[in-house]
Amino acid sequence: MLNIKEVNAHCDIPCKIYDPAVVQVAALSVVRIMDIIAELDTSSKENQAELSRLTVEKENQARIVKDEIRIIWGDYFKDPQIEAFPDIHQLVHSIMLQGSKCKQTIERENGTKLVELVNEFTEAFWATKDIKTQRVVAPYPPALEVVHPVLEVV
Amino acid sequence: MLNIKEVNAHCDIPCKIYDPAVVQVAALSVVRIMDIIAELDTSSKENQAELSRLTVEKENQARIVKDEIRIIWGDYFKDPQIEAFPDIHQLVHSIMLQGSKCKQTIERENGTKLVELVNEFTEAFWATKDIKTQRVVAPYPPALEVVHPVLEVV
Amino acid sequence: MLNIKEVNAHCDIPCKIYDPAVVQVAALSVVRIMDIIAELDTSSKENQAELSRLTVEKENQARIVKDEIRIIWGDYFKDPQIEAFPDIHQLVHSIMLQGSKCKQTIERENGTKLVELVNEFTEAFWATKDIKTQRVVAPYPPALEVVHPVLEVV
Amino acid sequence: MLNIKEVNAHCDIPCKIYDPAVVQVAALSVVRIMDIIAELDTSSKENQAELSRLTVEKENQARIVKDEIRIIWGDYFKDPQIEAFPDIHQLVHSIMLQGSKCKQTIERENGTKLVELVNEFTEAFWATKDIKTQRVVAPYPPALEVVHPVLEVV
Amino acid sequence: MLNIKEVNAHCDIPCKIYDPAVVQVAALSVVRIMDIIAELDTSSKENQAELSRLTVEKENQARIVKDEIRIIWGDYFKDPQIEAFPDIHQLVHSIMLQGSKCKQTIERENGTKLVELVNEFTEAFWATKDIKTQRVVAPYPPALEVVHPVLEVV
Amino acid sequence: MLNIKEVNAHCDIPCKIYDPAVVQVAALSVVRIMDIIAELDTSSKENQAELSRLTVEKENQARIVKDEIRIIWGDYFKDPQIEAFPDIHQLVHSIMLQGSKCKQTIERENGTKLVELVNEFTEAFWATKDIKTQRVVAPYPPALEVVHPVLEVV
Repeated sequence: MLNIKEVNAHCDIPCKIYDPAVVQVAALSVVRIMDIIAELDTSSKENQAELSRLTVEKENQARIVKDEIRIIWGDYFKDPQIEAFPDIHQLVHSIMLQGSKCKQTIERENGTKLVELVNEFTEAFWATKDIKTQRVVAPYPPALEVVHPVLEVV
Repeated sequence: MLNIKEVNAHCDIPCKIYDPAVVQVAALSVVRIMDIIAELDTSSKENQAELSRLTVEKENQARIVKDEIRIIWGDYFKDPQIEAFPDIHQLVHSIMLQGSKCKQTIERENGTKLVELVNEFTEAFWATKDIKTQRVVAPYPPALEVVHPVLEVV
Repeated sequence: MLNIKEVNAHCDIPCKIYDPAVVQVAALSVVRIMDIIAELDTSSKENQAELSRLTVEKENQARIVKDEIRIIWGDYFKDPQIEAFPDIHQLVHSIMLQGSKCKQTIERENGTKLVELVNEFTEAFWATKDIKTQRVVAPYPPALEVVHPVLEVV
Repeated sequence: MLNIKEVNAHCDIPCKIYDPAVVQVAALSVVRIMDIIAELDTSSKENQAELSRLTVEKENQARIVKDEIRIIWGDYFKDPQIEAFPDIHQLVHSIMLQGSKCKQTIERENGTKLVELVNEFTEAFWATKDIKTQRVVAPYPPALEVVHPVLEVV
Repeated sequence: MLNIKEVNAHCDIPCKIYDPAVVQVAALSVVRIMDIIAELDTSSKENQAELSRLTVEKENQARIVKDEIRIIWGDYFKDPQIEAFPDIHQLVHSIMLQGSKCKQTIERENGTKLVELVNEFTEAFWATKDIKTQRVVAPYPPALEVVHPVLEVV
Repeated sequence: MLNIKEVNAHCDIPCKIYDPAVVQVAALSVVRIMDIIAELDTSSKENQAELSRLTVEKENQARIVKDEIRIIWGDYFKDPQIEAFPDIHQLVHSIMLQGSKCKQTIERENGTKLVELVNEFTEAFWATKDIKTQRVVAPYPPALEVVHPVLEVV
């Protein structure tokens, strides 16, 4: 990771705070829903209805991932950040395609790959702010690894 | 904080992951917008338009706080969690009223009080899961203290 | 019911009108949809699609109940109203949990219990304004009893 | 009012309940907001922000009127109802135009005219179901007359 | 088609541009989704989930048709346009009913009829602006005929 | 423009139709609203409210541009399309930044630049489908040039 502390000096002041934490919660939710779908027996009408609910919520969480990544990338990433991470466009586009796969399928592997791509994006994001990150275990199922910033403890 | 590890044993499986991180980002955004409004000179038409944008976004972020708190409290908190935190209803109601104040006014103090109430809620939430928390400095303006869970580093 | 005419005197002026009628329509719709689901034969593809539609609409109507109750409780109920109805927090929380049950299941009994909880809330709401209520039969299926204010006829 | 009890016999079963009560609350809210705007001194930044909030909420409530009227008219009114009320298309179109005026202006007269048009629609709606209506005084400001169905008291 | 160039002279200035192109894309999407549903084997859980997704998206596209037609008709059509097209109310109401049929069923014929009604509306719309139209083949499946304005090539 | 007819052969079947026409209407609306704002005298309370409405609608239309471009780029553009237009990522990112400028300012030049970027995207999009385009004059104010596909007339 480069030290790019200075490049932010002339950033526009955004009126909304950008934080990939929101995206991570949504990406983990996609995997969680895939896990619940995998265990669901759809022979009863009630469970067919439950499958609809889970599918719509999976759709919704994948959409949140795509929307929020679009917002951070499209509003926050400007020339200095892109110079520091020249592959960011490609990474964001991969997240879009992977988000679509998570909508179209129920395979867990597609969800975990989405989480991993979001982790890569999160690392890049915090690096643009010269903030170190670490991998932690999410404190709820599916308990996957997620990237968190290392923050000053009060 | 009580140890209430056991009480969660029979929780329903939620299909969406609950994480107060989403609420914290919104609460901090409310204060951030108040700070930008405080510095805005509204004598030009362009800045009057900017005030409208900021007001609508402040409204939106305060609504997210209220909606997401409602969801966590109304979906996740059940008898065991409420027994462990008998004041949780009152706390949630305070967040609702404080969220309204943040919509109706532009005074920073109302925003910082909202952040503090969300912090209290966050502490209670993680305590119901027997996960320790710590206070860290948010890595973006307004750089207020927020409560984060202490997670296992990989 | 207490006479709490005076306590409202210093209420803030809300910019939106609060009226539980909106919640009642949504709660009744939940039961209505459950009744239609109960009669649906899901062996054909067209009816499987219909089950999805009905499930999503049930989800939506239950969400409206939770959102609108949250708004009335969180924006309108302040100290005087809470003193008059000290159990209101518990009642609102029960509506949240019952709304979740209506999302997760297709059992009519869950829907009728939601309607009844909304009726209790409605009685409390109008009592805070010192307006009498009565129970009437909803003029459309499922034709359940709902609480209406007794208003001055012109 | 014609007796058109029979004409409904073969109506499709709607999955959502239609009730103009929702529209009335929104139309009254439009007038309420106009009244608050009329009293607002917009010389301070805080009150300029308040004007933005009120304007957006007025916009939103007028949109609800238009959307909900569109839904009842477009989903529920079929040949038998239209034959009984041949002017319903014109009335609905008038509500659309009047809703636009309420968005574009802050004149109370435009709001009260919207309420009156919604009342006419409400009378027609209940008449198609052969349910009598009466005019009552809304139990909150602006305390205008609204049309309610006369329902069977339990 | 009448020449009604003059009648527009005193139209209000709308702040949003009205263009039936948005409606056409949605109406064609309805048919497209019906075609995909027709080919879907719903014996696997994954495909049952896919049916839910397609059903919800069909619902959404049909809603867009109804909402956007309501907006153009309710905001743009005023006395001069209605005099030139006295059947416009009836046509719009037919689109509402046909949109409902497209939500409730999966039969392609219902979708193609919706596209045709939207074409009629589109012809009327452009005629009120004295702009000629022609029928072209949509450049994507389902490749149905749609009405486009004949515009000045630069 | 390259002939890339073949590259589409193995495209996934999307369930929603992609058509930049929707984006163009929104981009033109941004400029239209800027023109109306430019002429608005904001000395009266009514016109201050109107400025709020116009600002919110400008915000909304710019968001539609960003969302819809994100959807077409993120769902439809895959390896073959990207190989044919290797600068598409950069172009899409420029549209995101320009959309933000249109939200933050009221300068017409920012709006017309957005329209032009959307035109470039539209040309690339239709070229990936081997469909010719031409520039036409939009048939409503602001009457700017937009790129339309040349379609087969029936």
